Amino acid sequence: MSLRYRDVGVDLEVAETINSRIRDYLGNTLFGGFVEVPALREYEMPVLVSSMDGIGSKVRLAARLDRVETLGEDIVHHCVNDIAVHGASPLFFLDYVAFHRLDPSLIDRIVGSIRAACDRLNIALAGGETAEMPLVYPPGHFDIAGAVVGVVERAAIVDGSAIRRGDVLVGFPSHGLHTNGYSLAQRLFGDDDYARYEPSLGTTVGDALLIPHRCYLESIRTLMTAGTVHGLAHITGGGIPGNLSRIMPDGMSAIVDLQPDSGVPAPIPPLFALLETRGIPRDEMVRVFNLGIGLIAVCDPTVIPVLPAECRLIGHVDFGERKVIVHDDV
Amino acid sequence: MSLRYRDVGVDLEVAETINSRIRDYLGNTLFGGFVEVPALREYEMPVLVSSMDGIGSKVRLAARLDRVETLGEDIVHHCVNDIAVHGASPLFFLDYVAFHRLDPSLIDRIVGSIRAACDRLNIALAGGETAEMPLVYPPGHFDIAGAVVGVVERAAIVDGSAIRRGDVLVGFPSHGLHTNGYSLAQRLFGDDDYARYEPSLGTTVGDALLIPHRCYLESIRTLMTAGTVHGLAHITGGGIPGNLSRIMPDGMSAIVDLQPDSGVPAPIPPLFALLETRGIPRDEMVRVFNLGIGLIAVCDPTVIPVLPAECRLIGHVDFGERKVIVHDDV
Repeated sequence: MSLRYRDVGVDLEVAETINSRIRDYLGNTLFGGFVEVPALREYEMPVLVSSMDGIGSKVRLAARLDRVETLGEDIVHHCVNDIAVHGASPLFFLDYVAFHRLDPSLIDRIVGSIRAACDRLNIALAGGETAEMPLVYPPGHFDIAGAVVGVVERAAIVDGSAIRRGDVLVGFPSHGLHTNGYSLAQRLFGDDDYARYEPSLGTTVGDALLIPHRCYLESIRTLMTAGTVHGLAHITGGGIPGNLSRIMPDGMSAIVDLQPDSGVPAPIPPLFALLETRGIPRDEMVRVFNLGIGLIAVCDPTVIPVLPAECRLIGHVDFGERKVIVHDDV
Repeated sequence: MSLRYRDVGVDLEVAETINSRIRDYLGNTLFGGFVEVPALREYEMPVLVSSMDGIGSKVRLAARLDRVETLGEDIVHHCVNDIAVHGASPLFFLDYVAFHRLDPSLIDRIVGSIRAACDRLNIALAGGETAEMPLVYPPGHFDIAGAVVGVVERAAIVDGSAIRRGDVLVGFPSHGLHTNGYSLAQRLFGDDDYARYEPSLGTTVGDALLIPHRCYLESIRTLMTAGTVHGLAHITGGGIPGNLSRIMPDGMSAIVDLQPDSGVPAPIPPLFALLETRGIPRDEMVRVFNLGIGLIAVCDPTVIPVLPAECRLIGHVDFGERKVIVHDDV
């Protein structure tokens, strides 16, 4: 018996070809990416802020519909948002992509989209790993993870501790589901659905579900220049209550009002309404999906006259048990 | 029809319980881990060095033998070694663990072992993500990725550019296969093999295969204090030739001699000999496995009298086409 790696589905020649291409996406080093940080010396007390995340079962949908170049923005923006909510500026990004079997064209499309998303934000793609794991991933399956490192002046960290009674909740619109709830959403639809034009969405169901995760970095910077921001919540898994509650200090309660008859504009967007129509109960919708609000800023009310046009007021802060109350009888 | 997340195999209550436990492993923040870096201000020109990696199909073997607490050292040491070879000191680590289904006890064991490995190296576990992805991972399957960030003085970066003719190759012994070649190794053995005591190994095949990846951080520091190190290669996927060639400058050739009759002590260790006996051709052994050498330092020959006892001389550098020649007729 003679057993080589390629006999078990791992092709070292393909791996080397792919590594060469990925070196083109990176700088001049494949391992241990170097990032010079003279800028850090300009900080009084620099604090590195980092986050690592995946994009959940959205990878399955993108693979199924052969639309994997949407995934770069998904993973990069998701990670960048998670440090931007602390006031941090991203410095560099790293990626991990693991496949059942290495497919050079597929990897080109995925890693190329990650690199493009980093370029658009002017952050370095400092390194990454592409793994072939036939014993872990079924044929055609893969997963993606990313990590981002940024920096913030210690005195400028945003962490919710300054939130007080009378603060207003400012909502920024999401672009679709972002990267959460896809295990659930994919149980509601089949291939016929994904290809179907849906009038309420103005596009196909598949296209609407694959809209990339929005990046809130510039929106956060604009808002923090305009007024005083006490806390920022990126609305990911757990929905509005799960993510907003994490930044509320003890003794403070956030009251979120999504009702259209309360004077707050914009009801739940059509994509979420479609999911609900397909059978997801309202309470589950609230704790799984962002419901059209991808970022919530908790601000001093003096920010109201200078709010960017894309924002809407969606609630306020009051004394009370530390929690989030969502009025959602749309 | 009414569809909830738990109907598709995602249990939000379990997820919240697990998030609470993982907060105990981290500091006081689950997202966007903060790491203060006053130490960076003591560097003339600090360079952040980072690496992201997985541990391949070793996760399958550890799951199959219910020995997942070995995986923390595997992922942390693998990543730390990849930046230590550039002379960097690790600052913090991030992890990503994705499952078919969240199992609190299993996650406790895995994330706990990651935290313990970080603690032993005195580096912060700055953040992480635990994902439940029933559409991507088959039942019982999971994957692990990690990222590490460290710092090095710009003038002290080790990158192989100083390698010159007459330098010696210093080998540090590995502990087993580390985290490479497991798709291949697992095709050679079955459950009966893993449980079998193997006299040549002094333990069972399963135990020998699951020995955690060794950390070379302290060995590298000791060697760099003792003498002049021009290059360091962590022997991972690609074996000795694949990894050593990456750091060789143009016009330099590394000649590695693993032959026992050349005066070099210690032939290929028994675990690798066993794999070869089972049917892996020698040339495939050389380009897949570390063959008992987990780290190679390319040093000025003045280091020879002060080499640590664990090291052995395994070759030298000469003029020639940029490549690695392995004499391996053991």
